[in-house]
Amino acid sequence: MANALPEPSHPAPAADTGTPGISSARLQAFSDAVIAIAATLLVLEIKLPEHEGVWAGLRHELPALASYAVSFLVIGIVWIHHHNLFHRVRQVDRALLLLNLGLLLTVSFLPVPTATLGSRLDGADATAAAVFYSLAVGLTSVWFLLFWHHLCRRPHLLVPGALAEARLARRHAVTGPVVYFAAAALALVTPVGSLGLNAALIGYLIVNRRSPTARTRPGAAAGAAPDRS
Amino acid sequence: MANALPEPSHPAPAADTGTPGISSARLQAFSDAVIAIAATLLVLEIKLPEHEGVWAGLRHELPALASYAVSFLVIGIVWIHHHNLFHRVRQVDRALLLLNLGLLLTVSFLPVPTATLGSRLDGADATAAAVFYSLAVGLTSVWFLLFWHHLCRRPHLLVPGALAEARLARRHAVTGPVVYFAAAALALVTPVGSLGLNAALIGYLIVNRRSPTARTRPGAAAGAAPDRS
Amino acid sequence: MANALPEPSHPAPAADTGTPGISSARLQAFSDAVIAIAATLLVLEIKLPEHEGVWAGLRHELPALASYAVSFLVIGIVWIHHHNLFHRVRQVDRALLLLNLGLLLTVSFLPVPTATLGSRLDGADATAAAVFYSLAVGLTSVWFLLFWHHLCRRPHLLVPGALAEARLARRHAVTGPVVYFAAAALALVTPVGSLGLNAALIGYLIVNRRSPTARTRPGAAAGAAPDRS
Amino acid sequence: MANALPEPSHPAPAADTGTPGISSARLQAFSDAVIAIAATLLVLEIKLPEHEGVWAGLRHELPALASYAVSFLVIGIVWIHHHNLFHRVRQVDRALLLLNLGLLLTVSFLPVPTATLGSRLDGADATAAAVFYSLAVGLTSVWFLLFWHHLCRRPHLLVPGALAEARLARRHAVTGPVVYFAAAALALVTPVGSLGLNAALIGYLIVNRRSPTARTRPGAAAGAAPDRS
Repeated sequence: MANALPEPSHPAPAADTGTPGISSARLQAFSDAVIAIAATLLVLEIKLPEHEGVWAGLRHELPALASYAVSFLVIGIVWIHHHNLFHRVRQVDRALLLLNLGLLLTVSFLPVPTATLGSRLDGADATAAAVFYSLAVGLTSVWFLLFWHHLCRRPHLLVPGALAEARLARRHAVTGPVVYFAAAALALVTPVGSLGLNAALIGYLIVNRRSPTARTRPGAAAGAAPDRS
Repeated sequence: MANALPEPSHPAPAADTGTPGISSARLQAFSDAVIAIAATLLVLEIKLPEHEGVWAGLRHELPALASYAVSFLVIGIVWIHHHNLFHRVRQVDRALLLLNLGLLLTVSFLPVPTATLGSRLDGADATAAAVFYSLAVGLTSVWFLLFWHHLCRRPHLLVPGALAEARLARRHAVTGPVVYFAAAALALVTPVGSLGLNAALIGYLIVNRRSPTARTRPGAAAGAAPDRS
Repeated sequence: MANALPEPSHPAPAADTGTPGISSARLQAFSDAVIAIAATLLVLEIKLPEHEGVWAGLRHELPALASYAVSFLVIGIVWIHHHNLFHRVRQVDRALLLLNLGLLLTVSFLPVPTATLGSRLDGADATAAAVFYSLAVGLTSVWFLLFWHHLCRRPHLLVPGALAEARLARRHAVTGPVVYFAAAALALVTPVGSLGLNAALIGYLIVNRRSPTARTRPGAAAGAAPDRS
Repeated sequence: MANALPEPSHPAPAADTGTPGISSARLQAFSDAVIAIAATLLVLEIKLPEHEGVWAGLRHELPALASYAVSFLVIGIVWIHHHNLFHRVRQVDRALLLLNLGLLLTVSFLPVPTATLGSRLDGADATAAAVFYSLAVGLTSVWFLLFWHHLCRRPHLLVPGALAEARLARRHAVTGPVVYFAAAALALVTPVGSLGLNAALIGYLIVNRRSPTARTRPGAAAGAAPDRS
């Protein structure tokens, strides 16, 4: 019967019209906006010096361009993970709300370490800048570990049948912090290599079929989705 | 029969499909965008000075970082309150429209007092900066008192059964202005303490079960929601 | 019968799922985002000078604060008018698309005249700044005249029954350009008075029951809405 | 029966309710936000010099104003193309996700070449600036060729019946890169003419009935739409 459907609430959910409280859909919409803005604001840190030629200026800004690109993709990955997560959330409790505020605070802050790294990667203070950058990026990934841990312990917040996926996601969510913090350590030896490691993780998260990002697709097979048909 | 269904029309809820004019849903969407942007623009005020080392720069920017974090969370709370409010609004009249414009104007303005406080909290003009900051933050909370007061007097604007909640919310909405303006007064004695009081209120609003924010959850039980089941 | 109606597309329209082409809903969503961002970016032009005291700085920035507030409300009115307009649009043709791009271009440009006026209203070049400002604001209102004129001539683009409203709206849409351009003329005599006239028009548009903004409500009675029931 | 339900769930279309993973609708919403922000941030590069008169300042900023307007419309076209594309996408695979991140990265980057061109179009380095600008703009259009090519080879990602349209779109998608890169070459001779060629292409894309943009309308006739009537 129609009213027996679990009404999984993506992304304009039942939860929204029916339930007071912050719905998963509105939380996603607001978070999407913050994440999109943070990604787009990054570019404001790049300015070709007026007194230089265009090509010389671009060469000069190469570290800033590289930091920009890596941070943009980091934020893109955050968006994908965020979407995958809240896609499986049926009900938002206060802890999720708090964790989400924390995540957004960390993501919105990324323009600062990005600008810092961009202006120092080829300078004397490159090591400190790269450590700061990798720590800041790593922080954005820690929240997902906390998110999934909380959801695994409160399965009633999940859409039906998503617990196994949540457990898998919690295991995969360790990758981000581990690699990003390893990049912070690597920065002590080679700042440029550290940025490269961050970039490599992004590539891995996008391409590898078993990473959280990749679950985007396979999830479709395993998925929480049949409830719609 | 399928065509007898009320055409549930997410994400533009009930109010929208029935009433021409500004729907509650579109007002929320537009407001969400403004609120999200204001939160994210805050970061533009933080810049590590180029000539300083990274860690020294971060220490130097500590007041700016603290102001940034508090303002970000203030705006987060505004978003939650705004969502709780318009979630209970069935029809938007001109007064609500006006009050909402006022709220958004105040929220969008927050980057100014935040930058002011961030650059002066450890300086000679800390007192004035902290007073200005707390007054500006306090203003964002006054609108909610006016919102709920208006809704209590025009219950036909509310979704059915939400009047009791609105009355409770009006009572709770006094907390914000009182504490924020107390923080403005406290700033005359201790600017840093004033910022701390603002932060404490945010913690209280997020954690306390009986505060307007907390109603997020319990409201679900009391709620205006039965129309879904 | 009600269920035979083509489901007129607020705000997640039939047009979107079924019809290729830009739907009214997506056009609204994109436009809302641009409008919200333009409104929020205005604040970036306000900076209290670091070397001044807070209160002296605020006094010094008074023209910038006044320009900011007026521009914010101008953009608020644009949003309301835009919503009222596209609420009545069933199908978006190329002319509407073009006019909308023009409108958004003009609205996104407002931070420039706003900053110009804010920094010169109390200076030698106040007259030119106020003329520039009023012309720029006036431009944003001209598009609505063109929008409504186009819709009156292509009634098939409107939701059923909205032609009379569109004709009324076209008549009302003359007010904006006339007053804003009168404000540009007035600026030649008194720049501050010109900003005041702009502010007065905003007040009128928000409060007056017969202005396009006010139609927000009465429209509910006359409205294009019964098709939902 | 459950499957007789009218499948409400716009604006998160079919693809979203059925498939876990990133839905076409959410990808569109996020992309719309990034695109809207990029378009609106462009204006931050325009500042009338404080020491100059308003009209002299505007004359002085004419290159910046022209670059701003062209870039704004370029981004507007990107939005229209993006909408037309994802409107026909039923399922988002990893390649589309990656291509989309690439597109957004390129679009968000446009404020840099726009500011570069705006500040140099009337200076010694105009040629390099115009080449850089046209290359950057051209890059944003290359993604659409890749998008359509991928979709033509994986027709199961398309909504039913859209393959012919996708093939046509792939052919049309060659226009953008060709003209923009021709503009880059032309810049070697005449920088201003190069900007003019970019502007001309935009005009063509908006006005010409057979260009991808123009398909907006005629598509409606050919269209995938009957399911609504």
